[in-house]
Amino acid sequence: MPGPLIPVAPIEGFHAVVPAGGAGTRLWPLSRAGRPKFLLDLTGSGRTLLQATIDRLLPLTGPGGVLVVTGATHAEAVRAQLPEVGADDVLPEPSPRDSMAAIGLAAAVLEHRHGGDAVLGSFAADHVITGHDEFARAVREGVAAARAGYVATIGIEATEPSTAFGYVHAGASLGVADAPSARHVVGFTEKPDAATAAQYLATGEYRWNAGMFLSQAGVLLDHLADQIPPLAAGVRRIAAAWDTPARDDELAASWPGLTKIAIDHAIAEPVAAAGGVAVVPGGFGWDDIGDFASLATLLASSGTRTLGHDEEVLRIGADDALVVTSGRTVSVVGLAGAVVVDTPDAVLVTTRAHAQSVKAAVDSWRAAGREDLL
Amino acid sequence: MPGPLIPVAPIEGFHAVVPAGGAGTRLWPLSRAGRPKFLLDLTGSGRTLLQATIDRLLPLTGPGGVLVVTGATHAEAVRAQLPEVGADDVLPEPSPRDSMAAIGLAAAVLEHRHGGDAVLGSFAADHVITGHDEFARAVREGVAAARAGYVATIGIEATEPSTAFGYVHAGASLGVADAPSARHVVGFTEKPDAATAAQYLATGEYRWNAGMFLSQAGVLLDHLADQIPPLAAGVRRIAAAWDTPARDDELAASWPGLTKIAIDHAIAEPVAAAGGVAVVPGGFGWDDIGDFASLATLLASSGTRTLGHDEEVLRIGADDALVVTSGRTVSVVGLAGAVVVDTPDAVLVTTRAHAQSVKAAVDSWRAAGREDLL
Repeated sequence: MPGPLIPVAPIEGFHAVVPAGGAGTRLWPLSRAGRPKFLLDLTGSGRTLLQATIDRLLPLTGPGGVLVVTGATHAEAVRAQLPEVGADDVLPEPSPRDSMAAIGLAAAVLEHRHGGDAVLGSFAADHVITGHDEFARAVREGVAAARAGYVATIGIEATEPSTAFGYVHAGASLGVADAPSARHVVGFTEKPDAATAAQYLATGEYRWNAGMFLSQAGVLLDHLADQIPPLAAGVRRIAAAWDTPARDDELAASWPGLTKIAIDHAIAEPVAAAGGVAVVPGGFGWDDIGDFASLATLLASSGTRTLGHDEEVLRIGADDALVVTSGRTVSVVGLAGAVVVDTPDAVLVTTRAHAQSVKAAVDSWRAAGREDLL
Repeated sequence: MPGPLIPVAPIEGFHAVVPAGGAGTRLWPLSRAGRPKFLLDLTGSGRTLLQATIDRLLPLTGPGGVLVVTGATHAEAVRAQLPEVGADDVLPEPSPRDSMAAIGLAAAVLEHRHGGDAVLGSFAADHVITGHDEFARAVREGVAAARAGYVATIGIEATEPSTAFGYVHAGASLGVADAPSARHVVGFTEKPDAATAAQYLATGEYRWNAGMFLSQAGVLLDHLADQIPPLAAGVRRIAAAWDTPARDDELAASWPGLTKIAIDHAIAEPVAAAGGVAVVPGGFGWDDIGDFASLATLLASSGTRTLGHDEEVLRIGADDALVVTSGRTVSVVGLAGAVVVDTPDAVLVTTRAHAQSVKAAVDSWRAAGREDLL
């Protein structure tokens, strides 16, 4: 559960970019294609993951400092959840072209609106973060590293040898005065196997890659222009038309052809190899709620095992059962580690140990022609 | 699944009594206090257990030969399900007074309407029986034993050392010509432990007590008059008033004071000890669907694991999961032996191994004040 937000001074010239996308299927049927994770309150805090993300970022950017990039089909829901974000600061993508196009577009719009030295930080819309002071400190250092010309990432302190996350390998100190904890990035790794993850943890040099990147808009786009010139040109062309009547025509002309690639592969990895990426250690709590096991752990840390109405849940011999309610009672008898998700049209019953197999259920319903459930 | 009903000749002077009661909680939330097991189609046959019971008995009694004794609150539902049973042949009990009062009342009504030598056979409304020819044969022998003055029971051939049923201990042959397989009953036993059950099975002399009793009405009531005179007098008094305008007054006066006792304890056990009870072996399939494990086995024998709409159920790593649907999809992932019961206001998730613990869930909801769920 996030703690109370502590007032902080905005960071001059800092803009947050929040890509709100991703059709995750591992929290189905709680999340659906039309109701993605970021639009849901998964912590029982009363705020959706997207709202909590904006709550965390707006104090650091100041008013008007957040851009949300989301699928056109979700733009209306996003605007409805975020009255504090201007309508022009929600950028609808006509179709999903992966994170580089989304963040690249936002960077190009910022470059166009505020100049190339505007610093942007990109933060997913569906992560849960605890420890706002420490988060703010890390962002400040990341901004300082970005001002020094780096692409900066925030590397989360690994608390266990997780095989669910990629890792950032930290090297020598960066030597930037306003980013005293920042270090050079030796490289990024994909999700490791358990033995490798344990090895990473033992060295103390590896941190979880939470996909948080900070950079000057111009620096980011220039890196992109080096790596994938047509993608950089494409988002800059769209950005130039964004705040004009030509936006829709330009989007229609350019968007569908943009290279579909993750920012990790497009920029973070190659630029790190060239010494251009810094990592700021982040000591705050972080979770991407990748599956129901992760959700169960998150809720447990808040002292509950229910998302919904706990008085409608009965556990007998199933103390740790994760239950998501939606108006009906749920009784779990003799099933330790159970996961029960009740929604108006779909019930899912599984265990924490099988949390990663939920995707297979979604695939099966799709194969059965039940698009209505997805 | 019952086979097709084969036309049989009715048994002269035979009447069936069907006590339709019992607030079983082990099939909750499928069965409820207001929607007991016998009113449900638990086999997917298209007929409720009560209807299937009457379908089985009417050909043996002939038209008008069945009396159903049920709680006043269920009388309307029972009549609606059984258009072939006359309204006067559904006997509403003002309150539950256990099986002796229910069967005793029916016996007394039969004695009053048809005379004391009318033979009645009592059969629960919520048992599943396969093998109608063999059932009919056993009933015919039971009637013959009853005509010879015995209280006859039908003892089911035990197919496993079940600890869920009571047993009938068979002794020497009865020596009644028209009941060649009938034997004297040495005694009845309560549900045994596993070792004792295995021992019973090994001897070949023990059969499951399915609570099926056949007797002449007068014989039964005379036994009752010997054992519990006020109960016999009470039901005879009510029966005398039953088909008159005095019925309600007599019920109000006499019913609440009737001894609350099972027919097993009131008659079967003491009369067996005195040598007055016979057992006819029954080789037909029989199940009282005592819990969800039993229901799962029953459905599996019909080649299904779903009660409801199988196309709305997805099993991944949970091939044997029993699922009861009610309009929504149910996905079970990685849970062998699971039991998932979906109803409009309550979802139950358990395993076959915990089937007997479902009662505890009902008790808990009652303790929580959720009478609406019971």
